[in-house]
This record gives sequence, C-alpha cells and structure tokens, in this order.
Amino acid sequence: MKYSKLFPKTLKNAPSGAQSLNHQLLVRGGFIDQLMAGSYSLLPLGWRVYLKIENIIREELNKVDCQEMLMPLLHPREIWDKTGRWSDPAVKEIMYQFKDIHDREFGLSFTHEEIVMYILGKFVRSYKDLPVLVYHFSTKFRNELRAKSGILRGREFIMKDLYSAHTSEEDMWKWYEVIKDAYLKIFKRVGLDVKVVEAAGGVFTKGHTHEFQAFTKNGEDTIYFCEKCDFIQNKEIFEGKTGDKCPRCGGEIKVSSSIEVGNIFPLGTKYSNALGVSYQDEKGEKQEVWFASYGVGMTRLIGTLVEIFHDDKGIIWPNSVAPYMVHLIGLDLQDAKVVAEAEKVYKLLQAEGIEVLFDDRIGVSAGAKFADADLIGIPYRVVISKKTGDKLEVKKRSDKETEFKTLDQLIEILTSR
Amino acid sequence: MKYSKLFPKTLKNAPSGAQSLNHQLLVRGGFIDQLMAGSYSLLPLGWRVYLKIENIIREELNKVDCQEMLMPLLHPREIWDKTGRWSDPAVKEIMYQFKDIHDREFGLSFTHEEIVMYILGKFVRSYKDLPVLVYHFSTKFRNELRAKSGILRGREFIMKDLYSAHTSEEDMWKWYEVIKDAYLKIFKRVGLDVKVVEAAGGVFTKGHTHEFQAFTKNGEDTIYFCEKCDFIQNKEIFEGKTGDKCPRCGGEIKVSSSIEVGNIFPLGTKYSNALGVSYQDEKGEKQEVWFASYGVGMTRLIGTLVEIFHDDKGIIWPNSVAPYMVHLIGLDLQDAKVVAEAEKVYKLLQAEGIEVLFDDRIGVSAGAKFADADLIGIPYRVVISKKTGDKLEVKKRSDKETEFKTLDQLIEILTSR
Repeated sequence: MKYSKLFPKTLKNAPSGAQSLNHQLLVRGGFIDQLMAGSYSLLPLGWRVYLKIENIIREELNKVDCQEMLMPLLHPREIWDKTGRWSDPAVKEIMYQFKDIHDREFGLSFTHEEIVMYILGKFVRSYKDLPVLVYHFSTKFRNELRAKSGILRGREFIMKDLYSAHTSEEDMWKWYEVIKDAYLKIFKRVGLDVKVVEAAGGVFTKGHTHEFQAFTKNGEDTIYFCEKCDFIQNKEIFEGKTGDKCPRCGGEIKVSSSIEVGNIFPLGTKYSNALGVSYQDEKGEKQEVWFASYGVGMTRLIGTLVEIFHDDKGIIWPNSVAPYMVHLIGLDLQDAKVVAEAEKVYKLLQAEGIEVLFDDRIGVSAGAKFADADLIGIPYRVVISKKTGDKLEVKKRSDKETEFKTLDQLIEILTSR
Repeated sequence: MKYSKLFPKTLKNAPSGAQSLNHQLLVRGGFIDQLMAGSYSLLPLGWRVYLKIENIIREELNKVDCQEMLMPLLHPREIWDKTGRWSDPAVKEIMYQFKDIHDREFGLSFTHEEIVMYILGKFVRSYKDLPVLVYHFSTKFRNELRAKSGILRGREFIMKDLYSAHTSEEDMWKWYEVIKDAYLKIFKRVGLDVKVVEAAGGVFTKGHTHEFQAFTKNGEDTIYFCEKCDFIQNKEIFEGKTGDKCPRCGGEIKVSSSIEVGNIFPLGTKYSNALGVSYQDEKGEKQEVWFASYGVGMTRLIGTLVEIFHDDKGIIWPNSVAPYMVHLIGLDLQDAKVVAEAEKVYKLLQAEGIEVLFDDRIGVSAGAKFADADLIGIPYRVVISKKTGDKLEVKKRSDKETEFKTLDQLIEILTSR
C-alpha cells in the first residue's frame, strides 16, 4: 500500500475527548475513528490488525475442533425470556431493548448464550450429537453508562464468542481445559503475556469464572496474586489486601492493575434446562446438557496491545499482528533514480510475500515521515534516499540503532522469522 | 472435517414455513438456521461458503485499490438527520429506529452513506486526499414487512458495501466503471452469469442506477431486455411490454425473472453537500466531493447460487465457493482395513491442501450417505469401501457417471484446476 493512497493519514493531535492512551494513539495513527461515545470505526490500518488477530484465533480454535458460524444480532424477546435474563435488572442496564413498529420486542446481542442454546435445541437429540463447540466473530452492543477507556470498553464492539455443549460435567471440564490452553496459545501468538485469574460470574453465572488478564499500568481491573504460587484472584472476589499471606501457600500477596482480554464461563445446566435442551444417552434415557461459554474481546484486545506496546513516540506492534511488516520510506523523491529504486524494493519485498506500507509522498520532510512511522508502529522501518546507495537503512521499531543491509539480507531477516 | 463431528447434520424435511427453494435446501443441508422471520444463522457449512465468497470479493476489490475497514451498526439520529433520510417515510418503513433509556435516538444500519460521509468529513481536506474507496462486510437490518424468499430478503443480513469519493463527476464515472468491472469479475468467479441492468434508485437517489441481475426462474425482479442489443431495464423503470420494439435498436423486447445480487449508485454531490464535505483544489478553491456507493448482498448471493445451482436431490456448489472440495464417503466402516484406508486418504488429501468432508459414520447406509452428499452439494464425491480396492470411486456432483481413480489421479485432477 502506498501511503499517499492510504485512508486516512495520521493526525498531529489526539481528539480532545481521548483520555486513554490506546484511544489517543489509535486515533492519531489512523487505526480507529470515533462515531460516538463508545463506538468506533476500524479504519483500514486498524482493520488489518483486526484481521491478523481474527486469523490467529480461527487457526487455534479450528485446531481443537471448534466450528465457526455466525448468529444474528437482533434477538426476539421470547428466547431471552426463557432464562429470565430479558427482565433481569443487571441485563436491562446493558442490553439495548426496543419495540419495532408492530410492537414486537427485540434486543441487540450483548452475548449469545440464549440464541446458541435455542439453535442447539433444534439439532441435539442423542449423545452422538455432543460435544458441540461453535464460535463466531460478531458485533456486541452494551449500553455502557460511561463508555470510556477508548476501545477497551465500548457500546459496540467485536467479540469472538465460543459456546460448548457436553454430555456431562466431566466432559465440560475436559474441554474447558482444552479451550483454556488454546486461549493461552492465542494470547501468546498475538504477543501478550496473559494470566488466568479467578473472578465473579457477573450476569452469566453465580459461580466463579476465569478471566484472562494482561498486567499493565492503566488497566480497569485490579488483580491480587501470590508471589510464590499460582494463587491469583480479581479484586471482585479477593478477600484481603496487599501484604497478606497467601491463603494457599503463605507467600506474600501483591497487587497489579490489569486488562481483561478474555473470559470463560462454566455455565453448567442452567441455560440448557431453561431452553429445554437435553439428550438421550446410550440407554435411551434423557440427560441434561452441560454448557460453557468463552469470550475474547477483539477490539479490546487491539486496545490492550497498544496500552502495553508503545513508547512516547507511538505504537510498537508485535510482528504477528502488525498491519504491515515493513514501513518503507522514500526520501529525496524529487530524484527519479531514488524513486525507481524505491519502487523496485517495494515490488520485490511484496513479491516475497512481505507486507509493505510505502511512504511515497513527495515534499514531506524526513522528520515528518519518521514521526509517522514511529506513530503507526510497523515492526521494520526501511529508508531509501540519495545517501543509502545500494543498501537500505533498516531500523526495528523497538530498537534505536539503524543498520545498513542489502535487499537480500533484509528479505532473509523478514522471511526467516 | 469429520461428518460425525459436523454441527449440525442434514435434516430429512424442510421446515414447514420454508416456501422458497434456497431456504429449503440450505436448511435441509445444514447451511442455515432460521432464528425468526427474515433472520438466519449461518451454520458452519454455510459460513464456509460465506468466507469463500468474502475472500473472492476482498481479493478483487483490493486489486483495484479499495481499502477494507469496518463501520459501526448503531447510528446516532443526528448524522442521519443531515440528509433528511431519518424522517423520510420510505426510510422509516425499513430502518429500525429506537430510543435508549436516556432517550437518545438510534437507528440500526440499513446502509452506510451518511456514516461514511461523516467519517470522510473528518479527513478529506485537499484534492490530494481523493479519491477514497473504502468498503466493509457488515450486518444490515431492514424491517421488511414481509420477510420472505429465504435468505434472499432478510431482516438481518450481511452486505459488502463500498463507498467512493472523488474530486469530480468525471473521476466518479471513471471509478464507477472500474468497480463495475471488478463486480463482473467477482460474480464470474463465484460462478454466476450476471447482467448489468438499469433500475430505479429507491431510497438512495432519484436518478437511475445499475443492478447486477442473475436470471433465474424464481427471482423477485422482472427484467426486460432486448434480444439483439444490450438494452436491459428493470420492470420498475421500463415503459413497455414483452414483444415491443427495443427503443435503442428496434429488436424484440423479452422478459426474464431474475435476482438482484449487487447494485451501484452514482450518488453525485447530494450526500457530501448534506454532510458539509468538500475539498480544496490545486488553486486552493473549495470544491464539491462526488460520491458513489456499491453493494453486494452476501447472504443473498448464497441464496441466489442455490436457486441457480441445484437439482432435485440438492445443491450443486460451484467449485470456487463450495464448503469443501471433496465429500469422502467411507462405506463398510465396520472393517478396520477400510477405516485405515479411508483415514489415510482423508489425511493425504488434506496434506495436499484439499478441503475434505469425511463421512466417517458407522451404521449409516450407503444410500443415506449418498443422499446427504447430493443434498450438501460438494463438487467431488469420493467413495471408499470393501469393493473399491486400491482405487477410489469418484463422481462429480454435477455428473451422473462414477469413475475409478487412483489417489494420485484424484489429487492431480483436484490440484490442476
């Protein structure tokens, strides 16, 4: 992609309302645009990051026999009435509910437990039909009273939600571990060090659940953890304070701010019973279906990456999710020879399957181009100018030093990763 | 994918309410499930078809410098008020509009002209910022009075919508032709013979627009066309009847039923003026932005393919969008030797990058497995049984004859396409 054609360009200043760091950097870099409080467009650069993450999740979930599908966003009240959640005050606070011109009541999806269970009810008859593990990437709506924290907490956002149905509690827990492992692989691949934390179930279940938390300075959540063992709980359920003895091993309890990027809910039989979904076992006897759900906030994950991977100049994307791998900068582009060389490098890198953003603007200073590259945060900055001759000036976004490399050397570095 | 694990299985009977052929076959084959009138889930098989189509469109649009992004679905009334469409009776009939608990008014996206123009207004300043061509695959909501025709006309569906902004009418028409060509390539790649038809602009523009129409027996639209020249108009605007003389060449006018799978709207300056979006030309003078929009109904396209490609036994997917390329059927699976051979073929085909649905069910008759394969409509049916020995029994879904091939021969056929 030539930067001259990229929509839109970077912005010099963050919008006045942008308090959180992820919001500021993502808006300035041209990754997102705010439509209203808590609602953002993913602009072309941001959408590329999104697709990278989506693809990693798809690969890891498909590996463990999860099946992708897509469920509707507009839900009839009747199905939500079956679990009683339609009228639950905690749900009514966050679910957009409205009537159409025929006075039929609808809600906008803030989650899909009821809907997936309704669908399962049409198809699950026998133990042979289980387990089922289905997921989708889909829009969620939550009428947040105070939408804040940039794309960490939106009124409209994308979530990957996975639902699993089982013949027994034992099978549910078995798959619960399989998915937990898949999640840990996903977070590792996108570049995050994530911890599995015990937490409250909120509007989903009265039992405890597990959250995937990324420790960072400006997180919404507070996590208490033992410095010695793997005891780790969300503030919501932790009974104690920093410096206390760990209830499990006696080690010291510490505290960290963090961001929740995923969660898993072992929901048991509540939803299947409410929707009347059961199965016949080998003996022909009717049995309860066990159920769990698992979520990853997609747009939130992008915001989390920015909160963690940045410096005072801009974003530093992990390679696996970067919108492009190389930010090629042409300087002295009044010179036809430099233009020809830059165009050649641009094409040859792409021919090797390397994704390149090529800053081909004429009349923009080197300083401005470097500042844009730092802000956008693509892993490798490659400069071609009158001075670079038959070499390329290469700098990793995460490093300070520049090095001179031949094109072949650069390709070698980028394709051997 | 092993058929034993696929969610869900085929259904013997179409649901009682399913009148249209695409609805019947897609539900019976396990591609879609109806949540309520006009609203469907795309089940795993259907989602695979969807992703194939999405990828073809993405490839063709990116080739001509279109940039993918994602815009929100929940729209504030204020932006829609700028064009007056919020209060337009024709819009109010199809747009879901509601108030949240704070009495703020929102609408659900049935299209995105206002929103994309609002975003363009934040970034477009100079002629250097144009043209912009951005698109997204996103959910659309239309409060259809009578949702019918299966997934051809839904209350909730996926659309690929593309928007282009230009410095002049001339540039708009230039790109209009580029996108028209890209659309024709897209439809050809998904297997459809599509005609570009003149039509009315509906709630988008008072001028004429172009529709991409696929002729078929059970279409919603009626198209009048000249048997000699390329005169071709939708019934909405055609003034005449079958047998009339073509107003352009004097040839005979004929009629066909057809399905609209895409449309393009040369919208001019109406939207940019309403949203106050302009640009400065080379001389620093303020100029009007020219605008067009282009849509492909994604779920509708799936339904259209089924309406056109089927026989009395089920669907016949074009190779390019088939959920899998090979439907591998194991018979006599009580025999461990046959199981081992089938598993081997399953793995070797996948190792060649060939997508395989493997019917591994034990205790299901050959007849039932063949019927399922015909219903699902995967291009190649490959049978392994006690009788097939070191060969495979291969049948194309679109042919009647079976042939015996070695695995190598089959791989050769499938990978040389």
